[in-house]
Amino acid sequence: MIRFDSDYMAGAHPRLLGKLVATNLEQTSGYGTDHYTAEAAELIKKCCNAPEARVYLLVGGTQTNATVIDGLLARHEGVLAAESGHINVHEAGAIEASGHKVLTLPHIAGKVCASDVEHYIREFYADDTYQHMVAPGMLYISHPTEFGTIYSLAELEELSRVCHNADIPLYIDGARLAYGLATESSDVTLEDIARLADVFYIGGTKAGALFGEAVVVTNPKLLPNMFSLVKLHGALLAKGRLLGVQFGELFRDNLYLEIGEHAVQQAQRIKQAFLAQGYEVIVDSPTNQQFFRLPNSEIERLQAAGVSFELWGAKGTEYSDVRFVTSWATTDDEVEQLLHIIDNR
Amino acid sequence: MIRFDSDYMAGAHPRLLGKLVATNLEQTSGYGTDHYTAEAAELIKKCCNAPEARVYLLVGGTQTNATVIDGLLARHEGVLAAESGHINVHEAGAIEASGHKVLTLPHIAGKVCASDVEHYIREFYADDTYQHMVAPGMLYISHPTEFGTIYSLAELEELSRVCHNADIPLYIDGARLAYGLATESSDVTLEDIARLADVFYIGGTKAGALFGEAVVVTNPKLLPNMFSLVKLHGALLAKGRLLGVQFGELFRDNLYLEIGEHAVQQAQRIKQAFLAQGYEVIVDSPTNQQFFRLPNSEIERLQAAGVSFELWGAKGTEYSDVRFVTSWATTDDEVEQLLHIIDNR
Amino acid sequence: MIRFDSDYMAGAHPRLLGKLVATNLEQTSGYGTDHYTAEAAELIKKCCNAPEARVYLLVGGTQTNATVIDGLLARHEGVLAAESGHINVHEAGAIEASGHKVLTLPHIAGKVCASDVEHYIREFYADDTYQHMVAPGMLYISHPTEFGTIYSLAELEELSRVCHNADIPLYIDGARLAYGLATESSDVTLEDIARLADVFYIGGTKAGALFGEAVVVTNPKLLPNMFSLVKLHGALLAKGRLLGVQFGELFRDNLYLEIGEHAVQQAQRIKQAFLAQGYEVIVDSPTNQQFFRLPNSEIERLQAAGVSFELWGAKGTEYSDVRFVTSWATTDDEVEQLLHIIDNR
Amino acid sequence: MIRFDSDYMAGAHPRLLGKLVATNLEQTSGYGTDHYTAEAAELIKKCCNAPEARVYLLVGGTQTNATVIDGLLARHEGVLAAESGHINVHEAGAIEASGHKVLTLPHIAGKVCASDVEHYIREFYADDTYQHMVAPGMLYISHPTEFGTIYSLAELEELSRVCHNADIPLYIDGARLAYGLATESSDVTLEDIARLADVFYIGGTKAGALFGEAVVVTNPKLLPNMFSLVKLHGALLAKGRLLGVQFGELFRDNLYLEIGEHAVQQAQRIKQAFLAQGYEVIVDSPTNQQFFRLPNSEIERLQAAGVSFELWGAKGTEYSDVRFVTSWATTDDEVEQLLHIIDNR
Repeated sequence: MIRFDSDYMAGAHPRLLGKLVATNLEQTSGYGTDHYTAEAAELIKKCCNAPEARVYLLVGGTQTNATVIDGLLARHEGVLAAESGHINVHEAGAIEASGHKVLTLPHIAGKVCASDVEHYIREFYADDTYQHMVAPGMLYISHPTEFGTIYSLAELEELSRVCHNADIPLYIDGARLAYGLATESSDVTLEDIARLADVFYIGGTKAGALFGEAVVVTNPKLLPNMFSLVKLHGALLAKGRLLGVQFGELFRDNLYLEIGEHAVQQAQRIKQAFLAQGYEVIVDSPTNQQFFRLPNSEIERLQAAGVSFELWGAKGTEYSDVRFVTSWATTDDEVEQLLHIIDNR
Repeated sequence: MIRFDSDYMAGAHPRLLGKLVATNLEQTSGYGTDHYTAEAAELIKKCCNAPEARVYLLVGGTQTNATVIDGLLARHEGVLAAESGHINVHEAGAIEASGHKVLTLPHIAGKVCASDVEHYIREFYADDTYQHMVAPGMLYISHPTEFGTIYSLAELEELSRVCHNADIPLYIDGARLAYGLATESSDVTLEDIARLADVFYIGGTKAGALFGEAVVVTNPKLLPNMFSLVKLHGALLAKGRLLGVQFGELFRDNLYLEIGEHAVQQAQRIKQAFLAQGYEVIVDSPTNQQFFRLPNSEIERLQAAGVSFELWGAKGTEYSDVRFVTSWATTDDEVEQLLHIIDNR
Repeated sequence: MIRFDSDYMAGAHPRLLGKLVATNLEQTSGYGTDHYTAEAAELIKKCCNAPEARVYLLVGGTQTNATVIDGLLARHEGVLAAESGHINVHEAGAIEASGHKVLTLPHIAGKVCASDVEHYIREFYADDTYQHMVAPGMLYISHPTEFGTIYSLAELEELSRVCHNADIPLYIDGARLAYGLATESSDVTLEDIARLADVFYIGGTKAGALFGEAVVVTNPKLLPNMFSLVKLHGALLAKGRLLGVQFGELFRDNLYLEIGEHAVQQAQRIKQAFLAQGYEVIVDSPTNQQFFRLPNSEIERLQAAGVSFELWGAKGTEYSDVRFVTSWATTDDEVEQLLHIIDNR
Repeated sequence: MIRFDSDYMAGAHPRLLGKLVATNLEQTSGYGTDHYTAEAAELIKKCCNAPEARVYLLVGGTQTNATVIDGLLARHEGVLAAESGHINVHEAGAIEASGHKVLTLPHIAGKVCASDVEHYIREFYADDTYQHMVAPGMLYISHPTEFGTIYSLAELEELSRVCHNADIPLYIDGARLAYGLATESSDVTLEDIARLADVFYIGGTKAGALFGEAVVVTNPKLLPNMFSLVKLHGALLAKGRLLGVQFGELFRDNLYLEIGEHAVQQAQRIKQAFLAQGYEVIVDSPTNQQFFRLPNSEIERLQAAGVSFELWGAKGTEYSDVRFVTSWATTDDEVEQLLHIIDNR
């Protein structure tokens, strides 16, 4: 079987695993106080050109979002997010479980636009009863989004401007940031992200690590007690150096971008193959997630040929939507097998 | 330097790491729906002689405690625990963060006794204003305790009986369960734990794994929505099979007990060496944590000789308390070096 | 000035206040354990034809909703509600503050329809990833709604059927229930409400009381620890008999319905007067809240003539929306003054 | 029957009730935006000599404590309080329900001492693992305490000094403040309280009002979003002017102090009568709560004679502890009846 279900199906990139093996018997202090974690933080800050930033390494995405958002919001505030945002849909209510409302914005293919944010805030404070409602205390966006789409530099600059005019922080969920940065059509660099966001995280789980998300706080005044917050949210790893070792590798010699580029190229080959057969994309994604509308017969044919992928939503009567995802682990051989199957219907 | 600071200073037991390496490129579904996780659960249930149990694999201890306790308690209930219990002292308020009070009991070297639990519950309901107070909704104990001590089988049976008479579940935090089970003086088996507790967890992080805690729910009616609770608490690992692979190894061919035995034997050698020099233990621990009262001059001498360990509490004027901890990773060579240094003052 | 801003601008109906004065020096036990509270509960249960119900008297609507919803939901569940529902918009995040997400449904003039509820639940469980999302654990509706509209008996029966098929409770927010029951066009009785809802509350604050909301739990198994929940939510009144005295009066000799009828009749006179002038209603409300679209010039003319009312949303360029509200305290004289002003433009 | 069970058994002081009756038909805006509330706030600020303070009127004590403490603490902080403090014992976990731990201090007759607070904070930050523990974020004390005792001015000044040195706010629960201020032996004035506390509340429920607690924020920077917090905690009264009217009366012409003095004098007469019979006090309270140890036979004799009071804790075999409480509503006649019964055994 060749599998394109998601980007967290394999273990770690061999370089990361190799380093974990090499350092396995070394004894270090716990909870991220070790030298691997310190080194990884330095490498990340350098790649971000953000010498004043603080870096925290957590295990998974949901806990990262819950911890950061809980730390950024005052008690009476909620978080603005796209209706389709991961925190609003697929985190089992983790944000609300820590007491905060997700305030939803319309989206286009997962992206929110600055004018909607501006409008929301303006209308909110224009309402005489605003103190009876949940105040918008920050903006959450994902880049790439849950639909694989990416913001342009101009769009991010506008969102950042709107947030800072309203005196609320901008937080970027970068669970798949590697794939956003590596996209040829993107004009956004990691430095841009670090310059425009107050807090963001660089996803490791979906980009080569066994697990791990690196929170970069470019405005450290906003999260003065992050260590305790991480602990309180159950997100503090005892053997923290496992995160340090992995992120150290990811941010040495450009590995993180390489992983992104590899996956994006494979994804684009798949996209072209489907388009060449006359199929339609349902979202025009430039990253490692691709969404197609296929006849059910074609879906069944692909499955019968040993191709594994996700249905995207409910099965339709004639056509259904599907998602193909690539990662660092997707081999040329696998893609060629897939292209061969697609082409030979 | 030879280090005895804690039992989470090294990586994983080589058998676990080897298996992670061997399976690294394999692609599996996420979130614990893979076959490694299923197999680990079966192995654990078999070792527990608990065929009806449900097993859930989480990443760390604080998140495990927060998730289980939040799931077991009704909204108006709190959790009974020793004043010295990990959830009361060292989890940064994670229990309270999910809305529940920790109701404290007196302890002797970390252990609570059944009569105190019974008394608490009886006095509570004897008070006319009990509905104005937080109801005791479950009992939390750790085995071994935070002081390395263990319950006898008779004590656990008594605690279990008291809990079930009061219709509240008994939950055992087994972060260091390996070391409790492996202690020669212990008459408690894993089967006993599974028979007497409603829920307990088998610690991996401190006993050979990179990370991981296996929650065993022997009374599954009590936690019908555990998957969503784990997700909501940010404790769901995307690449869940990493936990399955590790616990599969730990519970194959008795490795878990072997790890426990090795560490306990090393700890007892250290204990005897200090006692032979006329030093006192501050808690008489039969497990892998040892606590001594040493003259400050001796502490400095050991440190100067390259021995690393933790001060236990504040430094005294002449004497201070210290903790030495062993693990699967503690070598004979390291212990012999230490004994040599202890003996040659 | 004659005021139609809201239905909580005056104190208590004279019969209630008179009884408070008459009983003021009497000494009773606290926290709702007094005989006035017991008597009020009996009267309410009789009017509801619900002898098995439990009645709890709380102070205000937001605390009532927060307490009941928190009690009805399991930890991983959220509450279904109209996008326009009071709990979603105007309670400052009180539901989320107790850890639960509000899951929004589309609405027509504040009402949700059974097929939307059914569809939501069906789609939810049809999604393979539903355990990553917030489970719909109950349905909240308001009757009358925030727009003054009411459900028909058939609609309520359908909502009740859908909820019970899905095994989730139906909760009705009756902050203005008096006005819904008293509406001529309504075919819903208090007995119907008690038969169809699992929990509902009868609003006192907006219907003649100084304050107070009577929670009727027709399915007491669902809220076994309500007293402690009320206390925990800070909603327990020390001098609970103040609530008992007031609800005793409201439910003696049909006063509650009388109050409703009086206000609804006054509201309908106002509605007819505006319609007679050719103005439009923006929602066709049969209860005590009336919503009109008026030219700004007419709004200014009314205000200049000493009429006070609320703008409903932002002021428009030529036309704006306004709300007029009546209550037990609205006198014939005030309405006639208003009609005179409306007619004589 | 003559009743001394508690200080919230009767309705309101006649002056307050009279003013509620006189203003009943008046129509005002809601939620505390009315002129009565504004006037009450001014009167209170004047009596406190705290022109910069902000005053908020809430309904009950538990909701007041939960709202203020939730507002003062950062997410990772807990509240220091006496083990016997109302928030730790009798609020059904309301503080934990909003996510914060109560950190307990030893007490003498309900009072904490500055050196214990100082010691707690010093030890906390001296522990290397303090970031794994709940940080002390504020101090809660009650004055008078739950045992009727009061702090001296020197003690309050010392507590205030310790708090401010540690940069944490001092919050005083004044549920029975009237009785503390009116005590002859007290050297503490309302101005002192306002000068030394960052936030405190003046209890109305137990001192002449139907209900109501006035929160005085002398350091308004600490609670910038109090209105929303009050709403979020379900503690915002729709007809807020009811609170304004009552506190307006309490703080006009010294009524609040008069109420306190009356009750304290009656309580002291009772105390002297019991002492004269050779009975012992179990706490030497100078305020309106009196605690005695009586032979069970005497308790039964008093009850048989029609005297009602509370047992304080469980009944003993020969002797039991009892509580007698007076209030504004305690008449000379009632006290004389009681004294007559006490004396004529």
